[in-house]
Amino acid sequence: MAKIVCLGEIMMRLTAEAGTRLNQASQLAVYYGGGEANVAISLANYGHQVSYASKVADNAFGQAVKNHLRSYGVSIDFLLSGTGRLGTYYVEQGIGQKATKVVYDRQGSVFALMDELEWDLKELFAGIDVFHVSGITPALSGNWRQLTLQLMQAAKAAGCKVSFDCNYRQTLWSQEDAGEFLQQALPYVDYCSAGRLDAIYLLGIKEVDAEVAHYYQAMQQLFPTIDVFFSTNRKIHSTSVNELQGTLWFEGQCYTSKNYGIDPIVDRIGGGDAFTGGVLHGLLSGKAAQETIEFATAASVLKHFVNGDCNQYTEAEVIQFANSDSAKISR
Amino acid sequence: MAKIVCLGEIMMRLTAEAGTRLNQASQLAVYYGGGEANVAISLANYGHQVSYASKVADNAFGQAVKNHLRSYGVSIDFLLSGTGRLGTYYVEQGIGQKATKVVYDRQGSVFALMDELEWDLKELFAGIDVFHVSGITPALSGNWRQLTLQLMQAAKAAGCKVSFDCNYRQTLWSQEDAGEFLQQALPYVDYCSAGRLDAIYLLGIKEVDAEVAHYYQAMQQLFPTIDVFFSTNRKIHSTSVNELQGTLWFEGQCYTSKNYGIDPIVDRIGGGDAFTGGVLHGLLSGKAAQETIEFATAASVLKHFVNGDCNQYTEAEVIQFANSDSAKISR
Amino acid sequence: MAKIVCLGEIMMRLTAEAGTRLNQASQLAVYYGGGEANVAISLANYGHQVSYASKVADNAFGQAVKNHLRSYGVSIDFLLSGTGRLGTYYVEQGIGQKATKVVYDRQGSVFALMDELEWDLKELFAGIDVFHVSGITPALSGNWRQLTLQLMQAAKAAGCKVSFDCNYRQTLWSQEDAGEFLQQALPYVDYCSAGRLDAIYLLGIKEVDAEVAHYYQAMQQLFPTIDVFFSTNRKIHSTSVNELQGTLWFEGQCYTSKNYGIDPIVDRIGGGDAFTGGVLHGLLSGKAAQETIEFATAASVLKHFVNGDCNQYTEAEVIQFANSDSAKISR
Amino acid sequence: MAKIVCLGEIMMRLTAEAGTRLNQASQLAVYYGGGEANVAISLANYGHQVSYASKVADNAFGQAVKNHLRSYGVSIDFLLSGTGRLGTYYVEQGIGQKATKVVYDRQGSVFALMDELEWDLKELFAGIDVFHVSGITPALSGNWRQLTLQLMQAAKAAGCKVSFDCNYRQTLWSQEDAGEFLQQALPYVDYCSAGRLDAIYLLGIKEVDAEVAHYYQAMQQLFPTIDVFFSTNRKIHSTSVNELQGTLWFEGQCYTSKNYGIDPIVDRIGGGDAFTGGVLHGLLSGKAAQETIEFATAASVLKHFVNGDCNQYTEAEVIQFANSDSAKISR
Amino acid sequence: MAKIVCLGEIMMRLTAEAGTRLNQASQLAVYYGGGEANVAISLANYGHQVSYASKVADNAFGQAVKNHLRSYGVSIDFLLSGTGRLGTYYVEQGIGQKATKVVYDRQGSVFALMDELEWDLKELFAGIDVFHVSGITPALSGNWRQLTLQLMQAAKAAGCKVSFDCNYRQTLWSQEDAGEFLQQALPYVDYCSAGRLDAIYLLGIKEVDAEVAHYYQAMQQLFPTIDVFFSTNRKIHSTSVNELQGTLWFEGQCYTSKNYGIDPIVDRIGGGDAFTGGVLHGLLSGKAAQETIEFATAASVLKHFVNGDCNQYTEAEVIQFANSDSAKISR
Amino acid sequence: MAKIVCLGEIMMRLTAEAGTRLNQASQLAVYYGGGEANVAISLANYGHQVSYASKVADNAFGQAVKNHLRSYGVSIDFLLSGTGRLGTYYVEQGIGQKATKVVYDRQGSVFALMDELEWDLKELFAGIDVFHVSGITPALSGNWRQLTLQLMQAAKAAGCKVSFDCNYRQTLWSQEDAGEFLQQALPYVDYCSAGRLDAIYLLGIKEVDAEVAHYYQAMQQLFPTIDVFFSTNRKIHSTSVNELQGTLWFEGQCYTSKNYGIDPIVDRIGGGDAFTGGVLHGLLSGKAAQETIEFATAASVLKHFVNGDCNQYTEAEVIQFANSDSAKISR
Repeated sequence: MAKIVCLGEIMMRLTAEAGTRLNQASQLAVYYGGGEANVAISLANYGHQVSYASKVADNAFGQAVKNHLRSYGVSIDFLLSGTGRLGTYYVEQGIGQKATKVVYDRQGSVFALMDELEWDLKELFAGIDVFHVSGITPALSGNWRQLTLQLMQAAKAAGCKVSFDCNYRQTLWSQEDAGEFLQQALPYVDYCSAGRLDAIYLLGIKEVDAEVAHYYQAMQQLFPTIDVFFSTNRKIHSTSVNELQGTLWFEGQCYTSKNYGIDPIVDRIGGGDAFTGGVLHGLLSGKAAQETIEFATAASVLKHFVNGDCNQYTEAEVIQFANSDSAKISR
Repeated sequence: MAKIVCLGEIMMRLTAEAGTRLNQASQLAVYYGGGEANVAISLANYGHQVSYASKVADNAFGQAVKNHLRSYGVSIDFLLSGTGRLGTYYVEQGIGQKATKVVYDRQGSVFALMDELEWDLKELFAGIDVFHVSGITPALSGNWRQLTLQLMQAAKAAGCKVSFDCNYRQTLWSQEDAGEFLQQALPYVDYCSAGRLDAIYLLGIKEVDAEVAHYYQAMQQLFPTIDVFFSTNRKIHSTSVNELQGTLWFEGQCYTSKNYGIDPIVDRIGGGDAFTGGVLHGLLSGKAAQETIEFATAASVLKHFVNGDCNQYTEAEVIQFANSDSAKISR
Repeated sequence: MAKIVCLGEIMMRLTAEAGTRLNQASQLAVYYGGGEANVAISLANYGHQVSYASKVADNAFGQAVKNHLRSYGVSIDFLLSGTGRLGTYYVEQGIGQKATKVVYDRQGSVFALMDELEWDLKELFAGIDVFHVSGITPALSGNWRQLTLQLMQAAKAAGCKVSFDCNYRQTLWSQEDAGEFLQQALPYVDYCSAGRLDAIYLLGIKEVDAEVAHYYQAMQQLFPTIDVFFSTNRKIHSTSVNELQGTLWFEGQCYTSKNYGIDPIVDRIGGGDAFTGGVLHGLLSGKAAQETIEFATAASVLKHFVNGDCNQYTEAEVIQFANSDSAKISR
Repeated sequence: MAKIVCLGEIMMRLTAEAGTRLNQASQLAVYYGGGEANVAISLANYGHQVSYASKVADNAFGQAVKNHLRSYGVSIDFLLSGTGRLGTYYVEQGIGQKATKVVYDRQGSVFALMDELEWDLKELFAGIDVFHVSGITPALSGNWRQLTLQLMQAAKAAGCKVSFDCNYRQTLWSQEDAGEFLQQALPYVDYCSAGRLDAIYLLGIKEVDAEVAHYYQAMQQLFPTIDVFFSTNRKIHSTSVNELQGTLWFEGQCYTSKNYGIDPIVDRIGGGDAFTGGVLHGLLSGKAAQETIEFATAASVLKHFVNGDCNQYTEAEVIQFANSDSAKISR
Repeated sequence: MAKIVCLGEIMMRLTAEAGTRLNQASQLAVYYGGGEANVAISLANYGHQVSYASKVADNAFGQAVKNHLRSYGVSIDFLLSGTGRLGTYYVEQGIGQKATKVVYDRQGSVFALMDELEWDLKELFAGIDVFHVSGITPALSGNWRQLTLQLMQAAKAAGCKVSFDCNYRQTLWSQEDAGEFLQQALPYVDYCSAGRLDAIYLLGIKEVDAEVAHYYQAMQQLFPTIDVFFSTNRKIHSTSVNELQGTLWFEGQCYTSKNYGIDPIVDRIGGGDAFTGGVLHGLLSGKAAQETIEFATAASVLKHFVNGDCNQYTEAEVIQFANSDSAKISR
Repeated sequence: MAKIVCLGEIMMRLTAEAGTRLNQASQLAVYYGGGEANVAISLANYGHQVSYASKVADNAFGQAVKNHLRSYGVSIDFLLSGTGRLGTYYVEQGIGQKATKVVYDRQGSVFALMDELEWDLKELFAGIDVFHVSGITPALSGNWRQLTLQLMQAAKAAGCKVSFDCNYRQTLWSQEDAGEFLQQALPYVDYCSAGRLDAIYLLGIKEVDAEVAHYYQAMQQLFPTIDVFFSTNRKIHSTSVNELQGTLWFEGQCYTSKNYGIDPIVDRIGGGDAFTGGVLHGLLSGKAAQETIEFATAASVLKHFVNGDCNQYTEAEVIQFANSDSAKISR
């Protein structure tokens, strides 16, 4: 299997039970997750050798992050720790027509405050096939914009493929800042998770129609080094009911997965990361493009039925789910 | 904002988890609520100065009621306590096609046994804009029928608007008794929550068609002092899935809200009170009629997604919900 | 009411909460159940005198089984215990599009290891109207195939009606073995729970169309002593949403119940046993055929809304449910 | 083994977790229990044929009582049900130096309101060895004082031994009323649970010293038909730490058990009933007096380590505990 | 009763169950508390009119703080809110010989960042009898050192008594800084919670012996305006077992309470605040000095048996506890 | 740090809450553990490179074991999996004077059924400093007696030190069988956890007095290759209160740790393994003998305050605990 480094922030998530508002909660469930960490866990579950590079607080919660990642077989050799705090966020779970609400408390985290790269980049990328990072990381600070570029450049230089998930978060930076960063970063990218909205609002591609293939093509013209684009199309009927369909642009062609109903959703957080993990696994294990997009979408759908940020399924389970057409008790 | 007095019984509610029958339950969740108390909390959440008048047992559960009301900013200056018991009821939560089942144990409560008004009515209604009471109160005893009338008369005399929610409960009194009471009480009422079934079965208005506007008009002819009628039209697909639409009769016109699907319902109890609270807030804060009915219906729908009897949303949250058309994670 | 003996294995079931995979679970909910035991409890709930014959471990879990059965009024006079283990199984609850997954750990149980009948059969069947057993029992071992036949023969000889639920489980035996057993056993059977798939795959009846009546007729021709066949037709939209309809072949005619939507399912396990319990109750209490199939299907549907293997409803509650057409709060 | 009828009220108990005051509780644990019911369960656990006579509400909680009793093998053939309520009480669990606090809500229960005996007394006592009742029953109402005497007389007439547990509760009646009742009732009693305080305050025996033997002797002189007295001596160091020692007056001699430390107490409620159950079992199974008091005290101590009102131990477990002198893990 | 303003930070506390380390916790219990807020709640429980002045985040957790305070009847008229975060801390509950461990995450809270007083001090102190603040507030920042002095001066000027609880926290500031602040602040103080260690390490009083009276005397000589000192003497046998005794210096004399064993401790956090609340109540309600110290110590002991930061007991309950000498079930 | 291989069975443990008997439990808490696995985790927590060799079921519970071990950084490169079951055991937690009770269901596990070594022993022991195994492994079957000897011989041959924990379990084999095995195995052992009772009952050393030093000396004379013996002396006051003291025989001298009171015990299971882990860490990290035994005993004591089988403390935390003499809140 492949060797992968994922890098980014990982946070503690505290969640109230559905039906309880955050201000009423007398108990909060604890999870740990972050975009790149969730991708790392997916890939480790599929059998790859994955290392997660980040920095956490040198307290109980930093320790919890280590145990969390190791339990899935993700290496923490490049997980630094230092004095400070772990970013935190609080989730009021939506249900039915009521949306999920997130309260962030991530400012001043030990990761966000990093102002120069604390890893030996040679060591970090030695023998690595893919380096994966998301658009949340450069959004954390001006420093992180520079550091992310440095990481991409070093990864490229070391012969890694660079995987990048746009993952635009409006509470962290403006569309202008994000767009500017993308212009600098995408030339280093090989695999890019980006969709129609990213194309229009971040890259300034003219809105034409709803067909994502058009935008993939336009993005590839802008950034010819990227040969794989992927994203999901999510129709939100309610917080509890979504439809999900994945698309993959590969060697100039657009592949579309089955369209899944997800009803009811248990926990949507991490669904996109499960999708990215699935696409990377398809690419790294030599699956055909159609097989890859079916696998990735099935992995993402499965994630919605399990609590916590990360995908809990093996490759065999994802494939079985992708191929099944009913939900019989398996006994 | 306005000054409001709500008066009625408040009870302890003990609820088994959905999927567990009451006779199997080894744990019961505790809530406190009552029709008028729930309205009081809604109005306090919207910023009004609300006082709740009632009588509770002078034991731990009476204390719990006080803490419950105060936590929302409802004044307990007129909440009496005395030796006796707090009314109790038990809820077996329905789900899907299985209906919710209620076991009442409310007889002989310290409130129900009250045989003369224990408040100084001058003090109670001094400076008050609206006095709100529901049809559950006169249903508790012959005494309470008289006491409720006395309260309405005193409120009117003190210059309050009187708000009345029919809230007919067949286990407490007959349609005849309720109808007779309404004939006496409605001449004192300004704002009246009553629907088509109340019109037909309690007020003897002839059934014509399903259009609620017809019945509003007929009721207003009977009771010309009432210039606002309101009610919801609920379509019950199952215990978990309802549709809800609010209507408001205001200055001779009928206003209808959006029709909401609610799927899945977390806790329906208090949904009607949240609606009444929303209408009163609209009227008291000078919202237009259409805005009022949209607000009230949105407030009621939101209540269905939160455990416990009372609305947990601010005015801003209700408005945001009323204006949103999806259930995206807000982060 | 009637006197019934049910015989079979009863196991401990350990269930993770929906949204948690078995390998993640830090808590497991405990239930006890088994096909025949569930039928026994249904029948006891309806007022019959029911005895459950089985063998359990002489440890805490055997004791738990005794308490479980007795709590419903099922007699344990024929419940043996001995050194060994109680069969166990683990349930990962599915939800939405994710199927439920069962991990069995039932091998070597004190019941499965029984190699000769340890009851005095005269005593066991004295005064008994119906003996009920399912196809899981002969599937447990070669010994149990013989022992099940002995039991049926002795029951017949004692003047009991024999009720048999095919309940084919592919993890326990092959279709060939099951078919062979059925050829030997069905001549002793009076009431038989078997459906279209059983007819085709176990009894070798030629597949013609989807109409179950055809297969009932064909089965009755093969086994003329059986005059009652019954089964449910379940359409699985997802793990959370099923449709269910019951059919009953009685005196040469096929009766079909209302078709129910079940949405959402709380716990499907035991749904079939609740159906069988309902049919037997209809037959034993002299209900008409249509009434019987409506009762049995309603009982099965209700089971889906309650956690645990066994039906928790009285006859009156099932009838009320069968006759209701909405899910209003009953207060 | 022996045949026993126990008669009395059984209530629902709702308990907050230690460390949570009743007015703060958002969850309450549910138990069912009552003095005589707890004795009935102890005796059934030891293998006797026990019937529990009482009257419960014909609702979910009456049903729960039935399931509770049956699960231990107690017969409910004489458990009546009718319209009304089940008595309820609430427990705020003490811990350490904080005392446990009980809030009763038992007035007007369907049992307390009984005004004439609703059993056929011939049938009730046919073939019965012992009839057991406690001082809580006559304390419930003036009617029950008469009814309890009628029951004792009928039991005596039917040839039963009468067992009576004084169980004086000051919130239910005065010492005078209790004393007067005892003068009428004790002439019918054979086995009497009463201690030094009962002797002094209820029977007017002069206080001499702390030795319970003196009071047993004095009581026996007053009521010569009683030949067995028993009680525990409890030293309360704190709510969590008690010492407990049992004494038994048998054939003119006083027997004293080991003195047990109980640290920490899990749930003290029902500890006295477990003691009474142990004494009756000793008497009914022909144990020697010393063996009986050791058994009864051990049973009572064990009860303190288990949640809920009733003893959960078999005869073998109690004997093993009485004989052990350490608390090693038994594996 | 008296009118009191308490001012300080209030935080969210997230607690793992005893026996679970913070890094293992999958659930955290939520409480809200802070030194001055806990005192405010104690005083409100005893019937005083208490206002809590602070600043919280304008998010769900700020809302939760408001509901928390109001539920006890504490006025939030001076509780500000603004953009930012609420201070947070995490508690790993010790038990037995294992100490409790706290992980603070309070930096950058909206309260700590306040750099000028945002209240109208005239309004804040109008008609107020006592202003209470603790040494945690000036420890939060250099700004807060100045602001605390300004508050004390304004309170004095408005005719309030000033109550100050030293509450030295070594993780927030050095002994030097604290000592320097005390020199400036104590001249404005009337009631001072400070003990032997504060005298020696913060005020530089020479260590002589263990008798606290000596240090009280010495402190009063230094700060003659203070006429009341008080503190507890805690002997820590283990995390679960402490002894606690209160002392009060009043009008030149030292009063000592009973010495309490506390075994086992449920939650020690807030025990000191309950003591301070009790002393202030004694002073404000005109209790004699000995009565005051007995009341305050009993209140503190009771706090240890209830989860959460704040005292849950009324005056009557504290007095009953102070006077009781056993822990019998009160029924 | 050192490289260690631990080998043995690991099981699923299902535990009822204290105060609930196993037959009453409706929820069971899930832990994974085994003597050698617990030692492995301790050593990994202290920073060593530890590999755990075992065999688990290839189902959800085998997967859970993998995640469990990896979360602590234990390598699972030698953790095999295959068709079958994972051994299971059930724990009824004792409290106070009530002993903990274990129900084993471990027979026929995929590990116990192993009949030849399935590892490449060269690979397994390559570069390894210590091989650790316990007396539970040879007790599992006749095969395992042989296989354990083979493992020890191969480890020795590869240059590893062999660590052996007698861990005699009477339910698995007789004293005779264990003694016979020890005679064969101990000549290969370097570090041996064995105490006075092992010496007397398994090795036939004559009982002289209570001093463990005597027995260490005698054992060393019999097995001169062993130069380190260690064990704890546990005084059981109750299930909740124990005293614990460690002793270490090192280079002909006996070292004794502080004597700890443990009160109350949260979970005793794994306390011995934490001790062994601590001794091995002391030996492997070059601590002096007295320091080693203090460290190991402190580690064992700490284990008693945390749920689950394995030690959750770092080296720094153990040392801090060993050096502390109070249980103050550390904030």
